[in-house]
Amino acid sequence: MKKCKIVFKPEGKKVEVAHGTDLLTAAISAGVYLTSNCGGEGVCGRCKVIVKKGKYAFESNARLSDDEIKKKYVIACLTTVMGDMEVFVPQASKLHFERLKNKDAAKFAKKVLSGKTEEAPEGKAAGSKKNLKLSSLTRKIGINLPQPDLNDKISDADRLLREINKVCGFTPVLEISHIRKLGRLLRSSDWAVIVTIAFADTPEITNIEPGNSSIRNFGFAFDIGTTTISGQLVDLDKGTVLGTRTLYNKQLTFGDDVITRIIFAGEKNGLKKLHAAAAENINTIIEDLTGAFGVSLSDVTVLSVAGNTTMMHLLYKIDPEYIRREPYTPAANFLPTVKAKDLGIEINPRAILVSLPGVSTYVGGDITAGVLSSGFYSEKPVTLIVDIGTNGEIALGNEEWIIAASASAGPAFEGTGVACGMRAATGAIEDVTISPDFEPVLKTIKGAKPRGICGSGYIALLGEMFRSGVMDRSGKIDISRKTKRIRKKDGEAEYVIAFKEESGVEYDIVIKESDIDNLKRSKGAIYSAIMVLLKKVGMDISAISRIYIAGGFGNFIDIDKAVCIGLLPDIPRQKYLFIGNSSLAGAREALLYERSRADAAEIARKMTYMELSLDNMYSDEYVASLFFPHTDIAKFSGSCGKKEGRK
Amino acid sequence: MKKCKIVFKPEGKKVEVAHGTDLLTAAISAGVYLTSNCGGEGVCGRCKVIVKKGKYAFESNARLSDDEIKKKYVIACLTTVMGDMEVFVPQASKLHFERLKNKDAAKFAKKVLSGKTEEAPEGKAAGSKKNLKLSSLTRKIGINLPQPDLNDKISDADRLLREINKVCGFTPVLEISHIRKLGRLLRSSDWAVIVTIAFADTPEITNIEPGNSSIRNFGFAFDIGTTTISGQLVDLDKGTVLGTRTLYNKQLTFGDDVITRIIFAGEKNGLKKLHAAAAENINTIIEDLTGAFGVSLSDVTVLSVAGNTTMMHLLYKIDPEYIRREPYTPAANFLPTVKAKDLGIEINPRAILVSLPGVSTYVGGDITAGVLSSGFYSEKPVTLIVDIGTNGEIALGNEEWIIAASASAGPAFEGTGVACGMRAATGAIEDVTISPDFEPVLKTIKGAKPRGICGSGYIALLGEMFRSGVMDRSGKIDISRKTKRIRKKDGEAEYVIAFKEESGVEYDIVIKESDIDNLKRSKGAIYSAIMVLLKKVGMDISAISRIYIAGGFGNFIDIDKAVCIGLLPDIPRQKYLFIGNSSLAGAREALLYERSRADAAEIARKMTYMELSLDNMYSDEYVASLFFPHTDIAKFSGSCGKKEGRK
Repeated sequence: MKKCKIVFKPEGKKVEVAHGTDLLTAAISAGVYLTSNCGGEGVCGRCKVIVKKGKYAFESNARLSDDEIKKKYVIACLTTVMGDMEVFVPQASKLHFERLKNKDAAKFAKKVLSGKTEEAPEGKAAGSKKNLKLSSLTRKIGINLPQPDLNDKISDADRLLREINKVCGFTPVLEISHIRKLGRLLRSSDWAVIVTIAFADTPEITNIEPGNSSIRNFGFAFDIGTTTISGQLVDLDKGTVLGTRTLYNKQLTFGDDVITRIIFAGEKNGLKKLHAAAAENINTIIEDLTGAFGVSLSDVTVLSVAGNTTMMHLLYKIDPEYIRREPYTPAANFLPTVKAKDLGIEINPRAILVSLPGVSTYVGGDITAGVLSSGFYSEKPVTLIVDIGTNGEIALGNEEWIIAASASAGPAFEGTGVACGMRAATGAIEDVTISPDFEPVLKTIKGAKPRGICGSGYIALLGEMFRSGVMDRSGKIDISRKTKRIRKKDGEAEYVIAFKEESGVEYDIVIKESDIDNLKRSKGAIYSAIMVLLKKVGMDISAISRIYIAGGFGNFIDIDKAVCIGLLPDIPRQKYLFIGNSSLAGAREALLYERSRADAAEIARKMTYMELSLDNMYSDEYVASLFFPHTDIAKFSGSCGKKEGRK
Repeated sequence: MKKCKIVFKPEGKKVEVAHGTDLLTAAISAGVYLTSNCGGEGVCGRCKVIVKKGKYAFESNARLSDDEIKKKYVIACLTTVMGDMEVFVPQASKLHFERLKNKDAAKFAKKVLSGKTEEAPEGKAAGSKKNLKLSSLTRKIGINLPQPDLNDKISDADRLLREINKVCGFTPVLEISHIRKLGRLLRSSDWAVIVTIAFADTPEITNIEPGNSSIRNFGFAFDIGTTTISGQLVDLDKGTVLGTRTLYNKQLTFGDDVITRIIFAGEKNGLKKLHAAAAENINTIIEDLTGAFGVSLSDVTVLSVAGNTTMMHLLYKIDPEYIRREPYTPAANFLPTVKAKDLGIEINPRAILVSLPGVSTYVGGDITAGVLSSGFYSEKPVTLIVDIGTNGEIALGNEEWIIAASASAGPAFEGTGVACGMRAATGAIEDVTISPDFEPVLKTIKGAKPRGICGSGYIALLGEMFRSGVMDRSGKIDISRKTKRIRKKDGEAEYVIAFKEESGVEYDIVIKESDIDNLKRSKGAIYSAIMVLLKKVGMDISAISRIYIAGGFGNFIDIDKAVCIGLLPDIPRQKYLFIGNSSLAGAREALLYERSRADAAEIARKMTYMELSLDNMYSDEYVASLFFPHTDIAKFSGSCGKKEGRK
């Protein structure tokens, strides 16, 4: 078969593929990750690239503007390679997988240690768990065994277990692979060993190493989100967090949301690819953080993972097919402890991986983790927790009951599925004010030149656009406004937040009407889910004592502006509390406290879940919420007053 | 490197080996198994072969008779291959690994079913357990699951576990590999599955198959002896035995006793070879019995194994090195449940293997199994159990206490380590009477032409030789007796039991003085171990209510003759009871009854073990027992009166 050489600029990554390969597949093979919301189905038109040279066939340019066609843009997944090619990948088409280079590691570590990391800080609510006794999922124990003699010659295994029992008061399980090496190990280490014991199920020995000197034991907490994956390196002996790292989920290449990915999983090698993408993310985060903090991979003994039900299926290599077929049943909600290496995770080969239990297809371990870390499940006040992610997860309850649901918010607030979206990283616009002459005043992360808009930026932007009159209640941009920042391009109205010259990228940073539609659906999905949950339990919004806002970007949201656009209900602001990435915090808690692990199982058992996708009440609420702030403006009386800008 | 072709006659097996290979290794490579008591160390001189043609170097002929040297005999392990060779393997040098051919299978099955098998019948004592409720180690359960709908859409795993709980009243563990295939399996099998649950530790699902029709579930019980390996195919639903099969342990090629094998295990690939030999035996027995009874390998879900501590180390691939080094500690006595396939056993890949726990290096799971199957551990009368094997295992006690020891009897009574020994198979001499003119009257198994002497035959023979005056108290053959059957050969006296013409083999069947020495040490080791155990608990032989004789050949022993030679104590014959292969019976009990599994663990915990090898009292007893019947003849007043034969 004829081979074709493809060069991807500007990085210059090269690959050889068979004649007839599609260009998206070629890009993935070259390690060039393009955004692709539809998973390579030719639907979303996001994987745009510019062909500089070469022979190719391009199926359809329906999703390209005249300008783009002139500039030789093609949709990669619809383009067939017919010969050697040179391809330019525009910034906007790239999935941004940030990666620390080794030389940056020390700098990064310094930043994290000094608290200046870009990552969201720990959930506040988690602070209330400080009284828990440290009882980590794995523990390393130094054991000095008395040597056998004729008066004490029990078997090596019994000797080890006897001494462990003396120290710990229990006898862990010891499996055959350890017994096999025990005789030589004990004698070559002069009867001094370090034993790692896992407390996931029955206490079990997971590793035996020689030596009795310094003991270092680390774990990772992970939140596996549909759009982002966050990992946290934890010192298990001290109970402290060394650093946190967030990356876009590499599975984005195969589709934006869980449904697209489940469909992709059903294709040839689909599940394998999705699993490998998640494992690669996890390995990158582990490598970066252990590298930055000088932790040996062999001292990482456990991973605690929280994520939605589909993400967990993909991570555990479980076929997720039936999640998307009525009546939407997952393979399992409680997943057993596995060896991390069996999931392709490169740490100590004896390390284990555990996950927080979920409740249903749409209420996963991430919600369990959120409820766990927020702590409201053991308190009297009725509390609402809202996790603004691609699946907007919502739980409501107190110590007596919990009801939960998941709203398909889409990834707009996480920076994908919108033209200039990005994650909350350097250069992301995180706040906006629009002046009366429609000029935006931007606040970017680290004050860098703007590179895109992150979730909090979109919330502020929509609020300001509505307040200033740049757009109307239905989300239409008012093109009659007299400013160069409002324009029509390829028949679609857009508002320019930063012209190419003002930005840190090679194009104008804009918000299009189609973006507004996306964001409107996202905010509407979350708001209406909150309303339906309340109605289901016959409560009014005023009955809620507290609203916890969770999510990787939660700390940067301006509540006033979120209420202003109708994302969050209009209740006294002091009832709101940001708790950061509560899924990650819950995973970390499970890593550190036995009580939390028991609580997580209890939460998953007791939580009632509500299926919104099939609920008429939800459909009605959702349609009513597709306005700024809402059809029923009376509900938002205390929110932003609309001011008129000049024409 | 130069390759040399070796042909082994009479079978004509061929192999190519490197120039410089020793002939024993070459034989093993060709699948020709020679006896080798020393493990190829050039010590025992058992691996004798005749070189017909070819170039070779032979190190030393110290172990060969003049006649043998003339006939071009060499010791295979001391012979270096220097070119192509043709080698003849005499019958006496062959290890007899009996193997059913496929065409023999039906015949074999018929024999077994009609009770005409050569194997020893079940232990009698085991009959007392008939009141136990069948509760096999693995159980297959047919489950018809209700299909999920919108009102019942718990996860597939929860659904399966819920339905199992309805049927069984408990929830078994379900591991990730099953969860991975569950979604498709349940739907493709129309929600009807057969679940295999193992009850070794916490109940755990070991297999899920589609279908709900006929359920067949089989297990194997195994006794892994130093010299012989016995396996028994058991129908787990009916609790019945289909058939039993015994083979010589292929590890015999690497040495006769446990110490030789432990030393061999320390050599390059030694442990691997020893393990592979045991696994091959097990696979052969499984293949033969399942083939004979039309049982599918995929319906064999569990193996229950009993064996001495060294045999268990070798089977589980555990380095046995420290067993033979002071203070003689095994790696483990309680071994965890493993997947049989991980030990190279070819059945259903999901089948498990469990073993009966041991107590110490010299008191293994075979003794636990013996005590278990004999049942005396829950009864009032003080009982002695004697297992006459290569390790003569002895336990003494009742419902309150048990004390056990193991005597290094050697394999003489199992037919190796003696010139014309064989296992109790067709043609084995199992009983002998010697007439006043010193002519032997033989009884062979199946009345076939004699091929060798089995354990019961040796016991009878020694008794008769002593009674008739063929040998004296010290085991010396009286060459002054006037008969052609007593002669000297290569300077050693021997008694001819069957001349070549009378026998089914191509040589005279004899007992040499060196054989008598071996047998004397064997019987002395067992008798003195019994005496020491009694002394340790301050009891006289008369305090024993019952003596259970265990061992594969136990049913054929003439107690009078065994007492006559000083193998067993001289107490009223009605106190003796044969219980067959009690180790195999114990393994089978553990396979079938939950109560027996719990009892086995309890027996292993409560049994006190006595280390005989370092005990002065034992040394004294042993030396005193190296006579026929004993130094202290008064102890054997009721035994065979010595009659004079004619000179």
